[in-house]
Amino acid sequence: MYDIAIIGAGPAGLSASVYASRYGLKNVVFGFPGGLTSETHEIGNWLGTKLLNGQEFAKNSEEHAKSLGAQIVPTLVKTIERKDGHFNIETQKAEKFEAKTMLLAMGTAHRRLEIEGEKKFHGRGVSYCATCDGFFFRGKTVAVIGGGDAAAEGAVFLADLASQVYLIHRRDELRAEDYWGNLVKNNAKIKIIYSTNVLEITGGDKVESIRLDKPYDGSNELKVDGVFIEIGAAPNIELLKLCKVDLDEGGYVIIDTSGKTSIKGIWAAGDLTTGSDKFRQIVTAASEGAIAAHSIKQFLKGNNNNTQYLEKAA
Amino acid sequence: MYDIAIIGAGPAGLSASVYASRYGLKNVVFGFPGGLTSETHEIGNWLGTKLLNGQEFAKNSEEHAKSLGAQIVPTLVKTIERKDGHFNIETQKAEKFEAKTMLLAMGTAHRRLEIEGEKKFHGRGVSYCATCDGFFFRGKTVAVIGGGDAAAEGAVFLADLASQVYLIHRRDELRAEDYWGNLVKNNAKIKIIYSTNVLEITGGDKVESIRLDKPYDGSNELKVDGVFIEIGAAPNIELLKLCKVDLDEGGYVIIDTSGKTSIKGIWAAGDLTTGSDKFRQIVTAASEGAIAAHSIKQFLKGNNNNTQYLEKAA
Repeated sequence: MYDIAIIGAGPAGLSASVYASRYGLKNVVFGFPGGLTSETHEIGNWLGTKLLNGQEFAKNSEEHAKSLGAQIVPTLVKTIERKDGHFNIETQKAEKFEAKTMLLAMGTAHRRLEIEGEKKFHGRGVSYCATCDGFFFRGKTVAVIGGGDAAAEGAVFLADLASQVYLIHRRDELRAEDYWGNLVKNNAKIKIIYSTNVLEITGGDKVESIRLDKPYDGSNELKVDGVFIEIGAAPNIELLKLCKVDLDEGGYVIIDTSGKTSIKGIWAAGDLTTGSDKFRQIVTAASEGAIAAHSIKQFLKGNNNNTQYLEKAA
Repeated sequence: MYDIAIIGAGPAGLSASVYASRYGLKNVVFGFPGGLTSETHEIGNWLGTKLLNGQEFAKNSEEHAKSLGAQIVPTLVKTIERKDGHFNIETQKAEKFEAKTMLLAMGTAHRRLEIEGEKKFHGRGVSYCATCDGFFFRGKTVAVIGGGDAAAEGAVFLADLASQVYLIHRRDELRAEDYWGNLVKNNAKIKIIYSTNVLEITGGDKVESIRLDKPYDGSNELKVDGVFIEIGAAPNIELLKLCKVDLDEGGYVIIDTSGKTSIKGIWAAGDLTTGSDKFRQIVTAASEGAIAAHSIKQFLKGNNNNTQYLEKAA
């Protein structure tokens, strides 16, 4: 029986594991270390480290958690059931675990445009991760869709590889932080197309062009070899529904200041919560993970008769 | 005119500076980099770094903030005045600065026991920082007073230097995380004296002994060469009173989820706030700093007529 089962191995889950281990709580972490963070090309706002890349950070975090005793299970969780006051967890490989408490820290998944051709060309020119797939577009022409940090960062990263990058944004100015905005604007290889929506992705075997809702350079059709969709992320609500925790209108898990969800015995931390003023960053996720681990410690140590306590829960 | 004046250069202040600089906001940071963090002997829960010491972390954070353009002024702030919708700040060296918004991130200061002899022997055997002053007690006998992480960590640190360490705690069990608790209990040089209060510190020119409220080893008097008081910390409320921000009963600044205080134009982050479920850690401070910087960016960019907005404030 584990004290805590942590679902998700991004900054929130691994930070919670580090704190839990130091509290002497036996914990198991499910997922692939790093989460969405590992896709980040350049992390520049993790205090004390001027620059590191996402994979490096994921690897460091995993090693840190393991060095303190965390068990990391690199499999997705399939089902979660409450039974006899604890939780039964089964992974997609049918491995079974029992835990006294749960921490939901699965983060978010890339949001989709929901346009014609998006699904058809996924993996054949359409990507949701510039740093993962950018290398396939060396010397080619690509479009990045979006206007936030991820889109701007993706465009800058791709400009080093591609011959031409279009950054297409539906609004008339970027939402990205100035750091990224300036890098985009000062990069001769990037052309920003403002106030424009992409209606369709077309091609034969692979992506060949996109159709815009207003003409650019005299045409509604823009020839591209790749389309990077960077319009944000949202929680994957399948597991959340299994847990029956309350969600807000965007599908994010509602937590209190200690990370508690609406269901006793279940905490949540990181990008999938309503915490940290909804400012979703590595540092805010790591902080929420620490706070939740602390709250779980208090819960477990304050309730020796923990089983009964959980059974009373909704 | 600065966009943000950040008072305090610990993890909260420097994290806010990193975020602010990346948003293109001109910021100045007052204080000595690292804050109380720089006194920490061993940081083991900063995700991705198995072990670093406080001074190292402080130095890395300072360099990170400076590399992005922060101006760091290593002087304490003396007065803060609102005038014509902005803030006028004067340091103890009479340097003057103007800023559109303020972030209070001065952290906390060591709490005192308020017992006889404490003030008299401060610097002559009484210390509030084991890692700062421990080296003066090589081969000597010292007492650490407290039962939390700082006390346990201090005792472990001192055991490497002193010949004998007494850890004196008023309760019957330690509050420290298991990691530290176990290190203390397994250290042959440390003796824990539970359920005991120190009533007085006595000596001639220097500390010679402490008087306990119940006998230990047959006597209420315990011979020691040094006394390390590690009973927590509290905000320094002088500057907070100048700013007129609402405080809770413990003297902590009340903030909302975005770090806003009760006074428009003033945010707060880190150990001195009521945020992060009052769980005061490096990672929670850094997170609060990031959230506040993000909120300030939205405030400044959403209010071009910022001066007028501030004048309306209480």
